[in-house]
Amino acid sequence: MIEEFWVSILGSVAAAIVTASFVPQIIRGYRTKHLGDVSYLLMITICIGMSLWIGYGIIKQDLVIIGANISTIALNVILLVLKVKYSK
Amino acid sequence: MIEEFWVSILGSVAAAIVTASFVPQIIRGYRTKHLGDVSYLLMITICIGMSLWIGYGIIKQDLVIIGANISTIALNVILLVLKVKYSK
Repeated sequence: MIEEFWVSILGSVAAAIVTASFVPQIIRGYRTKHLGDVSYLLMITICIGMSLWIGYGIIKQDLVIIGANISTIALNVILLVLKVKYSK
Repeated sequence: MIEEFWVSILGSVAAAIVTASFVPQIIRGYRTKHLGDVSYLLMITICIGMSLWIGYGIIKQDLVIIGANISTIALNVILLVLKVKYSK
């Protein structure tokens, strides 16, 4: 039981770090008002893939996978909105 | 048993799509020879987080999680090398 707890902690930390990785990209884009080098396909494909991960997490009843992917999709949508805004 | 098979397929497809999402970013960077807007911290933090995901996958004995994260780290390292090269 304790071991399962630590495995969940490891997964949660991993999930939080991967999700957090998009924060500096958003901050950089927001500061420079320029996201020209970031590929639209990167963001869109990540959102599609992570939507499927959410389905996988729901079936496996793995809250870490579900939460991580919802958060990362949210950050990618923010990045996408910024890129559309700055490319006008 | 069949259900477990389809869940693995779903996870594998999700993993493949997320991993593949970095391919258009690499192609774009390689073509334009410019990755200035892509944050170093994005790539480095993804690699750190995904290394922990590999640990999670090993403990959970989930080959989908292990394979997906190894592939995504590999692509991020390629992206990182390109960015260092083009920023010189």
